[in-house]
Amino acid sequence: MAITLYYSPGACSLAPHIVLEEAGFPFTAERVDFSKAQQRSQDYLRINPKARVPALVDGDFIVTENPAILRYIAALAPEKQLWPDNARDEARCMEWMAWMSSGLHVSYAHIRRAERYATGEAALESVRAKGREATREIWEAVEKKMPSGSWLAGDRYSVADPYLYVFWAWGGGQVLGYDMDREFPKWSALARRVAERPATQRALAREKAAA
Amino acid sequence: MAITLYYSPGACSLAPHIVLEEAGFPFTAERVDFSKAQQRSQDYLRINPKARVPALVDGDFIVTENPAILRYIAALAPEKQLWPDNARDEARCMEWMAWMSSGLHVSYAHIRRAERYATGEAALESVRAKGREATREIWEAVEKKMPSGSWLAGDRYSVADPYLYVFWAWGGGQVLGYDMDREFPKWSALARRVAERPATQRALAREKAAA
Repeated sequence: MAITLYYSPGACSLAPHIVLEEAGFPFTAERVDFSKAQQRSQDYLRINPKARVPALVDGDFIVTENPAILRYIAALAPEKQLWPDNARDEARCMEWMAWMSSGLHVSYAHIRRAERYATGEAALESVRAKGREATREIWEAVEKKMPSGSWLAGDRYSVADPYLYVFWAWGGGQVLGYDMDREFPKWSALARRVAERPATQRALAREKAAA
Repeated sequence: MAITLYYSPGACSLAPHIVLEEAGFPFTAERVDFSKAQQRSQDYLRINPKARVPALVDGDFIVTENPAILRYIAALAPEKQLWPDNARDEARCMEWMAWMSSGLHVSYAHIRRAERYATGEAALESVRAKGREATREIWEAVEKKMPSGSWLAGDRYSVADPYLYVFWAWGGGQVLGYDMDREFPKWSALARRVAERPATQRALAREKAAA
């Protein structure tokens, strides 16, 4: 088994990076250097024509998109129980992941990568401003949706939890600057449970060293 | 089992509508009338605070987001084999679905629902124009990614296929106006395979009658 994760430090690829550490089998974490536009290099476009991270390569099999990558890693290490074991918890796990990729991530990208969505400084500013509103609204909706238990999908840690950790970190980062502890206490409690896991610590340390 | 799908004719809720017909158990298709802003009614917001369709209700369990709903319906009818039976095909199925919800749907929404992303007519026009570029690019990327076989994820029909059918229909619709057959021949061949299935015909007939 030769598994390679293509990632960029601090990007949403942190989620599969953590889950690979949870899974416990050997893998290579290959940094895609955005400052050198490596995501647009011919070599990388052969792996992911969408020019985004993450991408996961397992021999001759390539998979992109976080929900799919996370599911696949969990399937490679079934004994670690990183994926829910019943239909309702699985649906909840997938619901969270779909919302993260199509909702949270997209609203954030309107601030961080407004040039994807409009042209000209006035329009870009409008996109960023609306992105700030949308992000605030959706971050609040996440806090409201936080389950009463410890994890997002049923009683057990699942791949959805480290994925949501990424957006918690972005919430407290330079672009959004939220006071996550004060404004999003339930979400912060979950993020701390994720952060204190040794697998998360290892992935964070590797990304920090590479950044 | 009392299953209700909340949908709007022609919206992306067509995908779970088709898959419910494939699954073969009884369900209620409940139209959410966007022309009356029913998606923002208190009753509907209790079901889906995100004010979007689809939402699926199974007794006391509510699930939103197409990838999760589609997975859940497939799990309720395992004998119909609507979900891939191995890790790689499953990852491919989920990759397609994630791309559809966070990529195809989002690029389309920038044309159709630009007001979500900016304010003021000039900025809205810029968002729509960029949305047209992004949509064209991603529709072409879909055609390039079309597999050589009959279906998206392995040798068997899966829930990803009717989901991609929705975007094929949107491609040929009023907003985009692509000549799907000529410009996207592989995608069109798959869409036709989906369209000719009796389950698809039943869902389309019901949505047409409700519209």
